Amino acid sequence: MIIIDQLIDHNAVRVMQLPTNHRFIQAAFGQKADRVPVWLMRQAGRYMKEYQLLRSKYSFLDLCKTPDQAAKVTLLPIDLLDVDAAILFSDILIPVEAMGMSLQFTEKGPQLMNPVRQQRDVASLSIPEPEEKVPFVMETIRLVKKELGGKVPLIGFAGAPFTLMSYMVEGKGSPDLKTTKQFIHQEMDLAHELLDKVAETTIKYLNAQISAGAEAIQIFDTWAGLLSYDDFKQFSLRYLQKVVSGLNRENIPIIVFAKGSGIFYQDLLETKADVISIDWNANLPVIKREIGSQAAVQGNLDPYILYSNRDSIRNCVKKLLDSMKPYDGYIFNLGHGILPDIPFDNIRFLVDSVKELGVYD
Amino acid sequence: MIIIDQLIDHNAVRVMQLPTNHRFIQAAFGQKADRVPVWLMRQAGRYMKEYQLLRSKYSFLDLCKTPDQAAKVTLLPIDLLDVDAAILFSDILIPVEAMGMSLQFTEKGPQLMNPVRQQRDVASLSIPEPEEKVPFVMETIRLVKKELGGKVPLIGFAGAPFTLMSYMVEGKGSPDLKTTKQFIHQEMDLAHELLDKVAETTIKYLNAQISAGAEAIQIFDTWAGLLSYDDFKQFSLRYLQKVVSGLNRENIPIIVFAKGSGIFYQDLLETKADVISIDWNANLPVIKREIGSQAAVQGNLDPYILYSNRDSIRNCVKKLLDSMKPYDGYIFNLGHGILPDIPFDNIRFLVDSVKELGVYD
Repeated sequence: MIIIDQLIDHNAVRVMQLPTNHRFIQAAFGQKADRVPVWLMRQAGRYMKEYQLLRSKYSFLDLCKTPDQAAKVTLLPIDLLDVDAAILFSDILIPVEAMGMSLQFTEKGPQLMNPVRQQRDVASLSIPEPEEKVPFVMETIRLVKKELGGKVPLIGFAGAPFTLMSYMVEGKGSPDLKTTKQFIHQEMDLAHELLDKVAETTIKYLNAQISAGAEAIQIFDTWAGLLSYDDFKQFSLRYLQKVVSGLNRENIPIIVFAKGSGIFYQDLLETKADVISIDWNANLPVIKREIGSQAAVQGNLDPYILYSNRDSIRNCVKKLLDSMKPYDGYIFNLGHGILPDIPFDNIRFLVDSVKELGVYD
Repeated sequence: MIIIDQLIDHNAVRVMQLPTNHRFIQAAFGQKADRVPVWLMRQAGRYMKEYQLLRSKYSFLDLCKTPDQAAKVTLLPIDLLDVDAAILFSDILIPVEAMGMSLQFTEKGPQLMNPVRQQRDVASLSIPEPEEKVPFVMETIRLVKKELGGKVPLIGFAGAPFTLMSYMVEGKGSPDLKTTKQFIHQEMDLAHELLDKVAETTIKYLNAQISAGAEAIQIFDTWAGLLSYDDFKQFSLRYLQKVVSGLNRENIPIIVFAKGSGIFYQDLLETKADVISIDWNANLPVIKREIGSQAAVQGNLDPYILYSNRDSIRNCVKKLLDSMKPYDGYIFNLGHGILPDIPFDNIRFLVDSVKELGVYD
């Protein structure tokens, strides 16, 4: 009861503060904005010395699980880059840990002990109640919302079921998903059972984020692009659809990012997401022209441009913005996350360039 | 003069033996064949114990440069898999070494000493005469042709200019082309100069292969998929076009494989290649329907399926072949090369399945 009361209270606060007239929300819903909104995937990360300072005091997981610190990290790019949206600082494997897997971060990246391979592994996983098992996520959202005071919207997020399943089966990140592909072909029914459980978890998790105040949701299917087209439809798209259709999405734009979206974008429309976030190797204006008002698009600058000089960065930004000028429903972003060793000044220059060059006539 | 005489002789032999009524050539030119032809990228490789035995006696480069041994490797998959085409055993960096770079193969893969970064590096590279600098390649082709006796066609190949430039700039394979991307953006004119030189070299190299008897050509743009769409057009596509248009291609089908072809296939038609080889994450029948008779297609089974069991392999082959049944101009292949640890029996089973299930009504 206490929890429900809290949610109702927070919902009331949220509705009052919801910046529905913010350019990010407008663009996400395909409406005309004053200029192209900009935020960057992995905008709170290692390229910032302020982040590195915090990481010298907290482990990555501790940072995710300590609301006032996670809120601080979430807000860094608002203060330092002045982007048009904040995104919750967390990790896609947080709900996987809450399902019952043991999660560690080593210098090799995330490791899930006891990978899922058999029926009993799947059976042992629970569908956790977010406010019980990962309350720190919702608390972070509440703290961030309070600090932001409606200045820019806050994006909540989760990994897509296929991407989360890949980590659960491999036990870690994998460049080729060799074990996952064996699993989905040889243990097809079990794979679907696992994906169903992960999708249920993700729906609850994202709805809890929305209840806590998230004003947009992005779902990351980072590994979908490694699948064959048939496998993508069966094991990735189907569960993206399931998740999106389970969300309490009134006034909340849903963004789907899938690696490989340059190939799969027509199919991704079937999820009924509001925004499709597109990879950097795709021809964004052609995609937007084809899908028309069915969805807004987000993307898709090659993040490696940011290792280059200012002239190159500005040229590439201008080219992309010019090509997208005919369209409403466009959010500027990279085609993938910011890399840790990109110079901060180049990222700040990028954001400033988008603001200058992205004004609609 | 001696070289020219030899070429004329070999041309005469070639024309007599050219299997223009072979199903591979027919499909490559978009004509009706009796069944879907099948060959596999990297079909002569480490997954074969016969190849590993040869590699225990010769280094990889020595194997490439010793015509009777390279011919033996080229013919292994004809004997052991009974595929519908042979492909020259060689390495895409052979002509790069002939341009003046120092090439070594270590356990980390190919290494080019003194990577190309500055004007003087580009200036120091030559455009080699293939019969002078890499005669072993043409000699291998002649030996293979003699052994094949017209049974199946022999495919010659080269790396695409952008992919070769990537190795030349990075000095080795790179998962992200970070240095290459800096180079093309900051040293744009120099990049084009280098690409031009590599394209000239590739044209001479492939025409020498054709003169020696190659009956089809495949050009591999392995790294094109890492580029943004604009960079792909400027730095990859433009030089693929240049190479294809410089080939003596009468009766010789030209196949272009680019990683990312599931996104770029409409653009790849501009090369006027006869066959576009498609990545495994694309929807092949939809692509073939869209491009119609403009080109044949080749592909695109996910090679990772081959780690699975026979039922899965057969299901995936059947699905793909059934979906492609309405179309002439289709060559079965993987979406990428065979991986070294795939069981030989699974590959043999794959080829047999295509032959059984790929018969046109």
